[in-house]
Amino acid sequence: MKLRIVVPIITDLFNQEVVKEVAQFKAPDTEIDVVNIVRGPASIESRYDEMLASPVIVEKVVQAEKDGFDGVFVDCFGDPGVHAAREMVRIPVVGAFQPAALTASLIAGRWSVVTVLKSVVPLVDDLGRKLGLSQNIVSIRDIDTPVLELQDKGVLEKKLLAQIELAVQEGAEAIVLGCTGMLGLAQTLEKTMGEKGRAVPVVDPTAAAIGFLELLVRSKLSHSLLAYPYPPEKERKF
Amino acid sequence: MKLRIVVPIITDLFNQEVVKEVAQFKAPDTEIDVVNIVRGPASIESRYDEMLASPVIVEKVVQAEKDGFDGVFVDCFGDPGVHAAREMVRIPVVGAFQPAALTASLIAGRWSVVTVLKSVVPLVDDLGRKLGLSQNIVSIRDIDTPVLELQDKGVLEKKLLAQIELAVQEGAEAIVLGCTGMLGLAQTLEKTMGEKGRAVPVVDPTAAAIGFLELLVRSKLSHSLLAYPYPPEKERKF
Amino acid sequence: MKLRIVVPIITDLFNQEVVKEVAQFKAPDTEIDVVNIVRGPASIESRYDEMLASPVIVEKVVQAEKDGFDGVFVDCFGDPGVHAAREMVRIPVVGAFQPAALTASLIAGRWSVVTVLKSVVPLVDDLGRKLGLSQNIVSIRDIDTPVLELQDKGVLEKKLLAQIELAVQEGAEAIVLGCTGMLGLAQTLEKTMGEKGRAVPVVDPTAAAIGFLELLVRSKLSHSLLAYPYPPEKERKF
Amino acid sequence: MKLRIVVPIITDLFNQEVVKEVAQFKAPDTEIDVVNIVRGPASIESRYDEMLASPVIVEKVVQAEKDGFDGVFVDCFGDPGVHAAREMVRIPVVGAFQPAALTASLIAGRWSVVTVLKSVVPLVDDLGRKLGLSQNIVSIRDIDTPVLELQDKGVLEKKLLAQIELAVQEGAEAIVLGCTGMLGLAQTLEKTMGEKGRAVPVVDPTAAAIGFLELLVRSKLSHSLLAYPYPPEKERKF
Amino acid sequence: MKLRIVVPIITDLFNQEVVKEVAQFKAPDTEIDVVNIVRGPASIESRYDEMLASPVIVEKVVQAEKDGFDGVFVDCFGDPGVHAAREMVRIPVVGAFQPAALTASLIAGRWSVVTVLKSVVPLVDDLGRKLGLSQNIVSIRDIDTPVLELQDKGVLEKKLLAQIELAVQEGAEAIVLGCTGMLGLAQTLEKTMGEKGRAVPVVDPTAAAIGFLELLVRSKLSHSLLAYPYPPEKERKF
Amino acid sequence: MKLRIVVPIITDLFNQEVVKEVAQFKAPDTEIDVVNIVRGPASIESRYDEMLASPVIVEKVVQAEKDGFDGVFVDCFGDPGVHAAREMVRIPVVGAFQPAALTASLIAGRWSVVTVLKSVVPLVDDLGRKLGLSQNIVSIRDIDTPVLELQDKGVLEKKLLAQIELAVQEGAEAIVLGCTGMLGLAQTLEKTMGEKGRAVPVVDPTAAAIGFLELLVRSKLSHSLLAYPYPPEKERKF
Repeated sequence: MKLRIVVPIITDLFNQEVVKEVAQFKAPDTEIDVVNIVRGPASIESRYDEMLASPVIVEKVVQAEKDGFDGVFVDCFGDPGVHAAREMVRIPVVGAFQPAALTASLIAGRWSVVTVLKSVVPLVDDLGRKLGLSQNIVSIRDIDTPVLELQDKGVLEKKLLAQIELAVQEGAEAIVLGCTGMLGLAQTLEKTMGEKGRAVPVVDPTAAAIGFLELLVRSKLSHSLLAYPYPPEKERKF
Repeated sequence: MKLRIVVPIITDLFNQEVVKEVAQFKAPDTEIDVVNIVRGPASIESRYDEMLASPVIVEKVVQAEKDGFDGVFVDCFGDPGVHAAREMVRIPVVGAFQPAALTASLIAGRWSVVTVLKSVVPLVDDLGRKLGLSQNIVSIRDIDTPVLELQDKGVLEKKLLAQIELAVQEGAEAIVLGCTGMLGLAQTLEKTMGEKGRAVPVVDPTAAAIGFLELLVRSKLSHSLLAYPYPPEKERKF
Repeated sequence: MKLRIVVPIITDLFNQEVVKEVAQFKAPDTEIDVVNIVRGPASIESRYDEMLASPVIVEKVVQAEKDGFDGVFVDCFGDPGVHAAREMVRIPVVGAFQPAALTASLIAGRWSVVTVLKSVVPLVDDLGRKLGLSQNIVSIRDIDTPVLELQDKGVLEKKLLAQIELAVQEGAEAIVLGCTGMLGLAQTLEKTMGEKGRAVPVVDPTAAAIGFLELLVRSKLSHSLLAYPYPPEKERKF
Repeated sequence: MKLRIVVPIITDLFNQEVVKEVAQFKAPDTEIDVVNIVRGPASIESRYDEMLASPVIVEKVVQAEKDGFDGVFVDCFGDPGVHAAREMVRIPVVGAFQPAALTASLIAGRWSVVTVLKSVVPLVDDLGRKLGLSQNIVSIRDIDTPVLELQDKGVLEKKLLAQIELAVQEGAEAIVLGCTGMLGLAQTLEKTMGEKGRAVPVVDPTAAAIGFLELLVRSKLSHSLLAYPYPPEKERKF
Repeated sequence: MKLRIVVPIITDLFNQEVVKEVAQFKAPDTEIDVVNIVRGPASIESRYDEMLASPVIVEKVVQAEKDGFDGVFVDCFGDPGVHAAREMVRIPVVGAFQPAALTASLIAGRWSVVTVLKSVVPLVDDLGRKLGLSQNIVSIRDIDTPVLELQDKGVLEKKLLAQIELAVQEGAEAIVLGCTGMLGLAQTLEKTMGEKGRAVPVVDPTAAAIGFLELLVRSKLSHSLLAYPYPPEKERKF
Repeated sequence: MKLRIVVPIITDLFNQEVVKEVAQFKAPDTEIDVVNIVRGPASIESRYDEMLASPVIVEKVVQAEKDGFDGVFVDCFGDPGVHAAREMVRIPVVGAFQPAALTASLIAGRWSVVTVLKSVVPLVDDLGRKLGLSQNIVSIRDIDTPVLELQDKGVLEKKLLAQIELAVQEGAEAIVLGCTGMLGLAQTLEKTMGEKGRAVPVVDPTAAAIGFLELLVRSKLSHSLLAYPYPPEKERKF
């Protein structure tokens, strides 16, 4: 199976790391290909950024289908462009939120998200409402750190741990990392929490997304045409 | 008060009618100005159309604030670009869904939407979930007619009546017209239903939107900066 | 348009202030008239008070329709008598809760109420459930102060600020003042919060109510006859 | 235990029948006493009727406590005056809706109400929302018959059966009779449905109410003072 | 009426106490009979324990019906085996959760559970979801004490009080004791809370269960055959 | 990866077919092993059957972990024994409902289940409530056919199609086959619906379950210890 990852920002800062990370949990017969977008924002932290990135994301998804890929992962927690893109192709398209939220709902009854910035919290709340499982979300916490400052893994881990502990105290039974830029930390965090006697699974949204695409492709499933019909033909000016 | 209406399609087919309609229910000191978008779709009937229209809508909203307008109505039932636009300005911005849905929830306990096409139903369902009042929505029905074929008022009225009657049978206590292109019919429909002994209020989303903008401007209220913070500064390529 | 405000308590303590406040945000062609009730409680802080006030409120609403008013605002946060009154008239009737809650749901995803007394909290919770948007309510907080002790604006402002800050910490993106006796403070509170770097819109329920009545009257909408049919004729002894 | 039934209408049309009915399912040591109200409506079929009856109901409940009764049943499906009355006494007070709805939720996952008139449906919907278990209600159906025309048991039974069958088809696993005037029919209806191979329990709200009062009194429980505090002292004019 | 209590653990540690407790609040004509199970766990604190106990519980319920009992109380807060047992008999069968949760929802708008161990919290959360009234549950707290260590009433009372106070601070208007082993304390706790000026009703789940059985038996109601049909005949190997 | 499938019935009627079906959609490095249970019911169509099968299912899951398997699929739509089993092992354990329901929620906004018998409908409703996504379920329909009579694929397909068409008319955008005995039909049904112009994805719960296990194992995730702690040690008699 051939999957394309669309990293929907104009920097390739995360590309290498994504490939490396994905290599650890993809199936052996899954081939991964990563592309960036050329126009759009340097990172996605607002509805405005999502809006700017979406048209280029959809182009990339349409191209992926033409290029023969079996599925596309739009590598951003906010699922930008994902729903519009589904209207244009028949191969499965996932962002990071839906797979992570659904996976968390299987391994735990109630879970929390830990994301980058307080400004992103309302966006995540909306995603939960749209997916129909707000009842499972204990809280949406943040580490008060922009996406482009996630590089220092030591600092990042410390900030995440602090929020994860608060989430567990609030009743979270699992944690969803609320940004696909928080790479390579899920298992470390889970281990550290375990050593503190508060073992809690930490869902890496990238892992969940790739796993969900593999599930869909192998099951020969894709998004519903009743939910995502092709847009009617009409004049569209660019 | 000066309000700008952004008709988010590349045709000015509805502009005249909108101005005429709004004149009937705006406050005497409200000045109305209508603009179209120059790039985007001829009509909005899918997430793809919404995505295409959104960046230009946001530009128009930002320009409206610069031009000294007190509020902006994005004249489309799906609220395209509204949430991203709110992040860029401090004047109130509304689409048609939120004002209509909230107005319906005041005048009735449970209500239905009658929209244009079955393909739009999932989009309206999402809007209801995001606004947190799905419990009030009895059904989302459609008249199986594209936006650009709503001109024949006789046919349109007949199709709407058929769906409104079904909605009332299902328990709807009010009706929301699910497209801002269904102009000038709300009161006629309400009257006809009354004559059939099934009086039901019909919410014209344009009327609700203008009324809500007037409410917000006079109350000196606008969208929350906590819910719609300005996007952080960063590189954004176009 | 002529609107009547029914202040549903036997003191005219708030009348002057209400007129002054409403003058600031009503439309220029809206004429306001204020009346009190002659029997009933000195203030409304319990279901018992609401029950005592309701029959007189309904009389006043019926009289307002006979007097040619276009709409009535029952000036109390708990919407006392509003739903019964709607069964008796065809002009729009609003209390303060519904307009404020619906307005808050447009400008923010999740919001809190700050009301007078802990004993009122369950009543507000019920109002949210009935309106179908409990999901949007973060918390219902109180300032532990009876309605008739709200006169000292300095003390009141301080108490409100303390609760607003707690609400914002809990995730509230907007605040609804949970008593119509908290007059003239919404903008000051909003400004003070902004100066503290925690800008949050504060909904004055009186402003929202007048705005909603104007919206309804101009849109030629009123409560649904299917939701609020005239009570069947029968013997009723007084 | 001494229980008082307040039949909140100005006719004693149902009193004898209520006493007879209750005798069949009360505990042997439960003494029943029935009173009417002297002012108010001939029957309760609207919010307006509920409002008119409530003050006299509360007087009767307060008197019952003074008279040494252990609990009060306000014998009407809409729970009129019940919540205000609870603020004035410490003995348990129930209407018919809450006990019936809670009992139905124990014996079935999802259930329907069959009530008298379509105009009552929105009131029942509100009661379900306030009690927090709307999710369990499949539908609220009506037999299009006013309370004061329920005397012909043959006709009544036939009309109820028709609606019960529709409710079962919709997925109802139990039925709640939505008016306390539908006396003495629950078991017959259940038996007839069983003979048709569609056995479904039918909850007589009067039976559920008496049973719940007995449960509360024997368990030494009553409504919470935190939910129903005594109204603060203040001037109240009549 | 003859009721059988099935204490679903292999120790008779609680039997005497249960009989004594129930004697205080049962109706005079209710005869109580207590049995244990012979195989299964020493206490029930996990889904695994529930699973082990369930087959024997169902046997005991079936036997109770054969023995002519009118109803069965499965004396455990988690309702183990209750739903399977209902498929096998026509007499009413209740556990402790459903009666307690429904009773709490009548006497208060929102309430909390205080249970034994944190490990039980997810089980209680599930029970609330299944019963359709999660909206009424403020929190599920625990005293960090296994069932078999509840004997020291002094310590138990102290631990319960600490959690009850926290629950009331969170907004709970009533408390449900989340283990049927917390016998004989409900009224003491309620009294102590009242003396602290925080009067809150405390629901003893055993009292609620017996009361609900009496209600059902007297009302001639039992669980719905549509919700709990007899299992189809087929081969079943043991 | 080595996955074990526990077919929780005493007949090996479905084993061969399961292996064949799974071969079509598993990853190339996934090894599948199928076992039956030796005690329990011939099929699972009631809570009683689930209860009988559960203890043996848990034994099999514990054995699978000892045998070095990486995950276990309990091959039944009702997830029997799954939650108890999770308390006893650290490898991921899934039934068929959770994976299918979560997959459907990603590919469609609202979906329906088509199951075997009306008697199973309340069980599926409960599963949806527990998983917290009832809002996404349009309806739970049945083909009125016991599990052991699903062998005639022609008849089965026809019956399923009839219900799927009704579900689509009700608004379902995807279909979940509500029994793991409906093997090998998902794609045929999807194709036939597509040919009728009503293309709708049909989720085979077996495919979803295997895919979810692969996702979990590759992501190094399993159920939360906070949600599924090991049962405390104590005496347990068999």
